[in-house]
Amino acid sequence: MKRRQFLSGAAVAGATAALASGFAKPAIAQGAREWRMVTTWPKNYPGLGTGAELLAEYITKASEGRLTVKVFGAGEIVPAFEAIEAVGTGAVEMGHGAPYYWKGKLPATEFIASMPFGLTAQEQNAWFYYAGGQELADKAYAELNCKFFASGNTAATMGGWYNKEINSIEDFNGLKIRIPGLGGEVLKAAGANVVNLPGGELAPALQTGSIDAVDWVGPYNDLAFGLYKSAKYYVNPGWYEPATVLDNFINLDAWNELPDDLKAIVEAANKAVNVMVMSEFTARNNDALKTLVDKHNVELRRLSDDTILALGKLTGEVLSDVASRDPLAKEVFDSLVKFRTQSVAWSKIAEGGFMQARAMDYPFPG
Amino acid sequence: MKRRQFLSGAAVAGATAALASGFAKPAIAQGAREWRMVTTWPKNYPGLGTGAELLAEYITKASEGRLTVKVFGAGEIVPAFEAIEAVGTGAVEMGHGAPYYWKGKLPATEFIASMPFGLTAQEQNAWFYYAGGQELADKAYAELNCKFFASGNTAATMGGWYNKEINSIEDFNGLKIRIPGLGGEVLKAAGANVVNLPGGELAPALQTGSIDAVDWVGPYNDLAFGLYKSAKYYVNPGWYEPATVLDNFINLDAWNELPDDLKAIVEAANKAVNVMVMSEFTARNNDALKTLVDKHNVELRRLSDDTILALGKLTGEVLSDVASRDPLAKEVFDSLVKFRTQSVAWSKIAEGGFMQARAMDYPFPG
Repeated sequence: MKRRQFLSGAAVAGATAALASGFAKPAIAQGAREWRMVTTWPKNYPGLGTGAELLAEYITKASEGRLTVKVFGAGEIVPAFEAIEAVGTGAVEMGHGAPYYWKGKLPATEFIASMPFGLTAQEQNAWFYYAGGQELADKAYAELNCKFFASGNTAATMGGWYNKEINSIEDFNGLKIRIPGLGGEVLKAAGANVVNLPGGELAPALQTGSIDAVDWVGPYNDLAFGLYKSAKYYVNPGWYEPATVLDNFINLDAWNELPDDLKAIVEAANKAVNVMVMSEFTARNNDALKTLVDKHNVELRRLSDDTILALGKLTGEVLSDVASRDPLAKEVFDSLVKFRTQSVAWSKIAEGGFMQARAMDYPFPG
Repeated sequence: MKRRQFLSGAAVAGATAALASGFAKPAIAQGAREWRMVTTWPKNYPGLGTGAELLAEYITKASEGRLTVKVFGAGEIVPAFEAIEAVGTGAVEMGHGAPYYWKGKLPATEFIASMPFGLTAQEQNAWFYYAGGQELADKAYAELNCKFFASGNTAATMGGWYNKEINSIEDFNGLKIRIPGLGGEVLKAAGANVVNLPGGELAPALQTGSIDAVDWVGPYNDLAFGLYKSAKYYVNPGWYEPATVLDNFINLDAWNELPDDLKAIVEAANKAVNVMVMSEFTARNNDALKTLVDKHNVELRRLSDDTILALGKLTGEVLSDVASRDPLAKEVFDSLVKFRTQSVAWSKIAEGGFMQARAMDYPFPG
């Protein structure tokens, strides 16, 4: 989809409505800019929403008010999934969400966000900053008239809450599961009945048995959601989404118009938020897992090696197929899988190899 | 060591000499500050030195010159290991290095830098930003009259270059090895003959057999150093330094005097540099490992499980002993090992569990 087509779409109507409803577009007065950031998150949503708050805070503080950013929760100006249209059309200047929310408009964003059996958060950042990822993401987002920044990362997620046992890949056949994105595509190919339900309906649907399993995020968000009350097993590893990038998207004209110092502030603020969100998830997941296991007696289940091998193979086939349908998605996919091959070789002896050694059973203080 | 004692030390002489040698202390003119950053790195040293360069660039650009930071390589104003004295006394405003370089002055810094069998880079950041690490580091650095920022991370390192086989922990007995820091303390306890040599002497010492092994960094720096030409085995995992924090230290008075917007710029710039350095090491190590193995036929050796178990146990004992000698080091150590226990539990099913699954043998594009 080209920018022209995009601008002629439904977004203009939505943006106009938003403007009419009292959110007047601010002017640049005496070099002081006021930007609005629309988000796909409820205000102050744990982990995800606080990334947007931090970003606004860093930019506003560092620029001493020369660029003030005000955060709006999902639905305050536009509904969550219209955020990128509101930014692309210039109705607002800035947005915060996750790239795969825009896959209907731009399939490449699904690969930018996360890839089953793909990169870890640390590797994703390495890809963005030192292996061409930023340039590819900018190329993709330019189609939506936006500048892209990686602006947070969930780091490793879990493999979902299940009420049925998974002992082999065959057990996904006929399974009713709520799982979005590329992980959902893989499970569809494995015969699962993939559904999408709003967050609030997940626990009741698990309890009544109208669905068998749910993929949400990780211990921190899942604990807050109370999913442990409605499911028997908490499955790992999180092969669907080994890490999910959050995005800060900025109207291209607004971005290009910024002076260099404000550009530097926005860039550094996004990098700062990137490490902060990843750190918050890591620290809180640590805590929440302990609560889930020690206090709520959650049963952790690791997928068998045979199941993982079969899922890995199927994932490679499904991703290749999905990527082949769109040239830009294919370009992103090719870059990612090339980087992935080297990442697997290095992580086996580096981060991965170390964590395996550290997890062995020897006495240690703490 | 208290600040008063510290200020009365040899640093004042060094700093005075530096001032006398032509590096005049800048004044604040019309709100425009000019700061000098001394570093422990040769200028533009790969990975480590570029963190300092990036930091200066972000701060200078983002502040539009209200705070200009100029980088000096090791020896340009003061020798590498006098950097923190030059900053603490106020001879210069800012420095960049690694915390364990200051262990002679402040034992706690060794634990802040890295811990054998300790935290990964991602976990270390989580500890700094969301589990009290920043506060503890600030408390420690205040003893040196400095403000602390985490300002880069090597991420996982390797386990060193060896010309002797290590098949059990007994094989460290009598081994002549160049290894700094807490890893060196552990190997001393295992009977090794731990030496320190300047970087330039490592390759000849390995070649003549005057030492048997060298711990340096990881593939990126080790390849540049050519260590593969002088050693038989490249050992993993990097249990000595699973991740090493770099530090940005700022004279406390200079820091306290900054207006809030410049403080926000410096804080965000350090967080940005933190993720950038980690990303650069991750991307370049990926590449360099491939070159070492494919082009230079380097033989990778993983320590046996029994060796790892014995090293893990010994590490716990040695670290407890080292920490017990200094109250502040003990406070940092206690905080780290508490966070480590939860990190091990979560990483086993999160990052670590995922990487183990991903590394299995199934067909995948790339």
